[in-house]
This record gives sequence, structure tokens and C-alpha cells, in this order.
Amino acid sequence: MKAKVHVTLKQGILDPQGKAIEHALQSLGFQSASNVRVGKYMELDLNETDRAKAEALLKQMCEKLLANTVIEEYRYELS
Amino acid sequence: MKAKVHVTLKQGILDPQGKAIEHALQSLGFQSASNVRVGKYMELDLNETDRAKAEALLKQMCEKLLANTVIEEYRYELS
Repeated sequence: MKAKVHVTLKQGILDPQGKAIEHALQSLGFQSASNVRVGKYMELDLNETDRAKAEALLKQMCEKLLANTVIEEYRYELS
Repeated sequence: MKAKVHVTLKQGILDPQGKAIEHALQSLGFQSASNVRVGKYMELDLNETDRAKAEALLKQMCEKLLANTVIEEYRYELS
């Protein structure tokens, strides 16, 4: 199965990387850009055919490694 | 308008970060995980109501700053 995972900062958590990109965009003349938030996007293969098992595995991977659940939230799609 | 941008490495480009995550997952016991590829996911607001203009702006932002088009490709959604 193919998994697509999005890891983003929780609302209210300061995003210095997003702020830096926002300022860079504006200095390049893109004044209309604002509220830039940056996260991680991962794709991976799961050698699992049972959907429920794959979802459980993916959730554990996110909780244990892919996301820092103190400041980040995650969502995933399986196909 | 709200823009969602995915920036990922082009096919064939080595992904050391993905490899590192893959090995970490496997050392945590997730043997079924493979081919991990890591990219950037960005959300931003565009102060533009005309869709065509917003798309043109977003494409320029990607080409100039958000993606290194030598090794990365990008895709975006506007809503």
C-alpha cells in the first residue's frame, strides 16, 4: 500500500520557518502572500495488504517517529 | 485564497532524509515500511480573488523560491 503523510504544526504554535519564507516572498515582491505555514510531506510504501493493519501501523509510525505530537499534528491517506 | 503547495524531490534524485527515516522506522520494528520520500508541504493565504492571477502568482513563487526546480517538482491546490 502507498501511504501519504502530512505533518504540520498545531494551530497557535509559532512557525519561524513559515515566517522566514513569508518575508522572503514579500521581499521578492509577492506582497499578497501571508500566513505561510510549513510542514513535512512523506510518501512511503507499506508491505501490508490489510487496510486496518496498515492504518494501525501508520498511526504508530506517526506517533513514535514521524511527528512530534507535542507540537505537531498528522494526517495520512492510504491507497 | 488558500494555497496548498507540495514540493517533492524528482524521481531518481537520492533522498538521504527519506533513507534515514526509513532506517529509523525499521529499527523501531516497522519492517513493512520502505521507499520513504520526504518533501515540504506549505499552506499560505493569497490576497487575490482572481483565480488565474492567483495561479500565476503561485507558480512564480514556486519557481523563484519555494522549490529548487533543478531537483524538486511542485504541485499546488487553490481553494
